[in-house]
Amino acid sequence: MLNAQDFLEELAAILEDRKRADPATSYVAKLHAKGQDAILRKVGEEAVETILAAKSGDTLQLVRETADLWFHTLVMLSHAGLGPRDVIAELKRREGISGVEEKAARPQES
Amino acid sequence: MLNAQDFLEELAAILEDRKRADPATSYVAKLHAKGQDAILRKVGEEAVETILAAKSGDTLQLVRETADLWFHTLVMLSHAGLGPRDVIAELKRREGISGVEEKAARPQES
Amino acid sequence: MLNAQDFLEELAAILEDRKRADPATSYVAKLHAKGQDAILRKVGEEAVETILAAKSGDTLQLVRETADLWFHTLVMLSHAGLGPRDVIAELKRREGISGVEEKAARPQES
Amino acid sequence: MLNAQDFLEELAAILEDRKRADPATSYVAKLHAKGQDAILRKVGEEAVETILAAKSGDTLQLVRETADLWFHTLVMLSHAGLGPRDVIAELKRREGISGVEEKAARPQES
Repeated sequence: MLNAQDFLEELAAILEDRKRADPATSYVAKLHAKGQDAILRKVGEEAVETILAAKSGDTLQLVRETADLWFHTLVMLSHAGLGPRDVIAELKRREGISGVEEKAARPQES
Repeated sequence: MLNAQDFLEELAAILEDRKRADPATSYVAKLHAKGQDAILRKVGEEAVETILAAKSGDTLQLVRETADLWFHTLVMLSHAGLGPRDVIAELKRREGISGVEEKAARPQES
Repeated sequence: MLNAQDFLEELAAILEDRKRADPATSYVAKLHAKGQDAILRKVGEEAVETILAAKSGDTLQLVRETADLWFHTLVMLSHAGLGPRDVIAELKRREGISGVEEKAARPQES
Repeated sequence: MLNAQDFLEELAAILEDRKRADPATSYVAKLHAKGQDAILRKVGEEAVETILAAKSGDTLQLVRETADLWFHTLVMLSHAGLGPRDVIAELKRREGISGVEEKAARPQES
């Protein structure tokens, strides 16, 4: 069982390993082999499934679909040579400077 | 310095507080006041922006848009009485049982 | 040769017939049998594929994905008891009142 | 009042004209001036709004959002030097060869 606190980093490390796995047996390696568009298609699909799960009012389903969405954004980040720490750092930066939500309201920031 | 999951929990706590803030001054309170569809619309929009950022090849932009997407999924979870720990627990559960990526390949699991 | 709107009406009539077809042999009947969410999932997926096709610069692929998107919006309309004539009427109404694009810029119209 | 049957072509012709209009006064010209991503962002947003309208059960809203979606796919086609006749031809081609829905079920056709 993984340590809870570092789970996202652990998961990201696993995903990095899977990049070099056999596409015939690894779902993640297969996504990378198919290329960026295949990964982005999954991000889009899981976003739609998350929205539909939220509308269904089934919280268990919502948790599952959000997990799928986060999982595939992690694969997408990995494909681009990035990881969850980059996204976390960005969220922290916004909060650190002037409050998380204030930044969220200004997506066009320079 | 907080690690990734701690920060997500801290951010989730902030978002819970913002639920009860003044919609006139708080972006998050305004989203909640507008209702679930307004939040889901943002989740969908940020997913599209994330996809376009990935296609642009601009990694800084990709980090920012992914941060926006995660942020709005956290607001969505908060709206449903859920939090990042539920999603992390689901991702851990998949890992614990039979490997993260194996589960990801079987979204129709019972 | 039928013109554009006539063909859309013809296609809509075919889709109405398929609602009552055998889900085991008809793709459209199967979508209806799975229910509204299955149809909406396809609308979302085809929108993402259309966006990715546009980014690819492959116009043949863009035409195909847009056809898929329109096709599934027609199935969605059919599921709701609506048809392309309702959408065409709405687009005409906007044009008739004050110009197509002016209306498009004001999505919050009453 | 436009002739009903040729409305999509008429609308496409209007959209072509608007490409060369002043972005300060024309919504469509402004979208083109902002570039492809701005148009695709709208396609994605309107797809999400269409899905949410379908879930709301409000058929009038569904018609309006589908009109917005179709409208922005027409702008997208125009941006790529294409028009509704290309999409209609593709839909006809599928029907002509082996039935509309059979083709829809095989999006990976060569």
